[in-house]
Amino acid sequence: MITDIINKKRLGKELSYHELDVFFNGYLEGTVKDYQMSSLLMAICINGMTEEEIFALTKIFIDSGDTLDLSFIPGVVVDKHSTGGIGDKTTLIIAPIVASLGVPILKMSGRGLGYTGGTIDKLESIPGYRIDLSDEEVIKQVQDIGVVITGQTTSLAPMDKEIYALRDVTATVSSVPLIAVSIMSKKIAGGADKILIDIKVGNGALLKTKKEAQELSILVKKIGKVYQKEVHTIISDMNTPLGYCIGNSLEVMEAQRILKGEEIGNNLTKLCIDLSTELVCMAKGVLPQDAQDMVLQAIKSGDAYRKFLELVEAQHGDITRLSISKKCKEIKAKKSGTIESISAIKLGELSVSLGAGRISKEDSIDYGVGIELTKQVGDNVKKGEVLAKVYYKKIPHLQDFEDIFTIS
Amino acid sequence: MITDIINKKRLGKELSYHELDVFFNGYLEGTVKDYQMSSLLMAICINGMTEEEIFALTKIFIDSGDTLDLSFIPGVVVDKHSTGGIGDKTTLIIAPIVASLGVPILKMSGRGLGYTGGTIDKLESIPGYRIDLSDEEVIKQVQDIGVVITGQTTSLAPMDKEIYALRDVTATVSSVPLIAVSIMSKKIAGGADKILIDIKVGNGALLKTKKEAQELSILVKKIGKVYQKEVHTIISDMNTPLGYCIGNSLEVMEAQRILKGEEIGNNLTKLCIDLSTELVCMAKGVLPQDAQDMVLQAIKSGDAYRKFLELVEAQHGDITRLSISKKCKEIKAKKSGTIESISAIKLGELSVSLGAGRISKEDSIDYGVGIELTKQVGDNVKKGEVLAKVYYKKIPHLQDFEDIFTIS
Repeated sequence: MITDIINKKRLGKELSYHELDVFFNGYLEGTVKDYQMSSLLMAICINGMTEEEIFALTKIFIDSGDTLDLSFIPGVVVDKHSTGGIGDKTTLIIAPIVASLGVPILKMSGRGLGYTGGTIDKLESIPGYRIDLSDEEVIKQVQDIGVVITGQTTSLAPMDKEIYALRDVTATVSSVPLIAVSIMSKKIAGGADKILIDIKVGNGALLKTKKEAQELSILVKKIGKVYQKEVHTIISDMNTPLGYCIGNSLEVMEAQRILKGEEIGNNLTKLCIDLSTELVCMAKGVLPQDAQDMVLQAIKSGDAYRKFLELVEAQHGDITRLSISKKCKEIKAKKSGTIESISAIKLGELSVSLGAGRISKEDSIDYGVGIELTKQVGDNVKKGEVLAKVYYKKIPHLQDFEDIFTIS
Repeated sequence: MITDIINKKRLGKELSYHELDVFFNGYLEGTVKDYQMSSLLMAICINGMTEEEIFALTKIFIDSGDTLDLSFIPGVVVDKHSTGGIGDKTTLIIAPIVASLGVPILKMSGRGLGYTGGTIDKLESIPGYRIDLSDEEVIKQVQDIGVVITGQTTSLAPMDKEIYALRDVTATVSSVPLIAVSIMSKKIAGGADKILIDIKVGNGALLKTKKEAQELSILVKKIGKVYQKEVHTIISDMNTPLGYCIGNSLEVMEAQRILKGEEIGNNLTKLCIDLSTELVCMAKGVLPQDAQDMVLQAIKSGDAYRKFLELVEAQHGDITRLSISKKCKEIKAKKSGTIESISAIKLGELSVSLGAGRISKEDSIDYGVGIELTKQVGDNVKKGEVLAKVYYKKIPHLQDFEDIFTIS
């Protein structure tokens, strides 16, 4: 009986493959109700899952849809996933870099919920950009230009989509086992040979502690092993926002600047180089130092940026029509000193309040609004100096966000 | 935000009165969805509640409806509640006993779910018996004959009814704090001066361990204190079924036999005498030995049974038309020996499979079916001797219940 399964997990006992299968497929079929699923999900959040349960649930998620077969694409096909954070536009930068170095990359991304838009929302700020490629179009484009960034097709792990929507409204998102199942079921169904996962940790991330990030890292590798997929992970900081821009069009513009080599040394550029280097190592089996040299050269030569333009054009986007709001307010320093910290989560909240992110799934996004930081952590500022520019459509309540910057 | 409240409890933190109020009243108003409520309830089941939270939630439940004012009824009005178990027909026996001794008793009972019918289902097996008395009729009948047993009116703690229905299908029933809130909100709204709670513990009860039973006992007394209500508790065994009969009509017949003094010394008779004695002590302030003498005399003199007939008549029941199914199968001993145990939970399951109880709220009940034990724990039996009679309408699968009796 359905309640017996919930009760077993409530008491912290292990569920069998059969029990998980009956419950989760029953949910898709409508015999298990959403209030029963949310009750089980909460029991999982608090009591956890064993590895056997995690493997079983990943299989159930994968089996709920199709699996792409990319074996006919020459070379090692890589995929990259980020657990998400404020100002995370790494996919827009990394994918063109590695593709320009001959590493095929196929990226299916989601829409964002909370904080900022997802990768797909960012790309949609480029007028005309298509995010609804069919499986056939995806495969053809990878073969033609070596890179594709499109929306998650409904055919891969559709159960994840259903469960995620429910988790989001029932406070059952931050569960390491459920995050592992969600990521890995989509990645394995996506068909790439090797997978790189950027695990964010900090106040602006889903995972707040390094311990949870390490748990997730171990889990995704173990799941990968079951499917003979090599999984690499990088644990990166999300207490400070990535780069200078938050907001969809603004982030695409920032990605362009980095691809052109115009911004060196900030945390975003550094992370993008690290992730690209790792992907090149994974795909080509070269030494890390050699891979990094290749990545830096791809930027310097303009190859990476040209690949970005090729990608946008292939998906019918018109980069010349990218725009940001004309209305702008400045946040100024209230005292002189050094910037101690910039709160990623508060910036995320401000960005949502501007309309750059969604609170509920039905919300629409203002692509042209957002925040551009003009200072970073460690910078010295004088009282009255501009710390950030806020691009808005409706006048924002900036007083709610006065403590984004800590100056001492 | 609603998910912030769930998340707080997920992390084991204390919710404020305001947060509980927003969440639970939001549920009644429809702004909190059932999948969000079940998620919070599961978090409460696993992480528990503080006393402050329990007091707050009890108040919220009480405030969701009316409170009966019984202050104009002379004498101490008592109420009795049982956490429920297999073959528990104690209310049918105790209420007439204490009423015949001049202790006014007002009992609002629920329908049963699982195992067997509730007290109200048992009374409905008496053709004509009304269980839908209005608040006015209830008060008039207590004044007239000193006893009433009716269905829970919808005006008292209506929130409990909504929440209980959800708990039942989401495996969130067995939570000591939630049980305490559910019982006490109804009892306090019911208006009695003093309350006796019979807490069942064992394999056939909601609470499986003595520790949980003791926790519940402490909690209900503390909640009572907040409302200046004296609460007494008795913790009683529910590993063995109470008495010999399980099934609605059969249990009414057994109650009649005990009230007539025809069955002395079994666990049911003993418990009924204990509970009645406690109620008389509470109401009259007499010594336990004197109270017990009064109870035994009420049975011996026929006063208790006459009060039962008066109660049934007052609520329009025709006790002469009580009937059981004509179809009967016998369960026989497979070997000779002593009966070591009789599984209350397995008897409950058999009774549900016969149609004496409900699996879902919409199920109807067969009043005439059930099980009559002919042996009790400790009895010596010979191979082939009858252990129980099963009254049925559709032929039952008795082989599923072969291990009800353990003989050694």
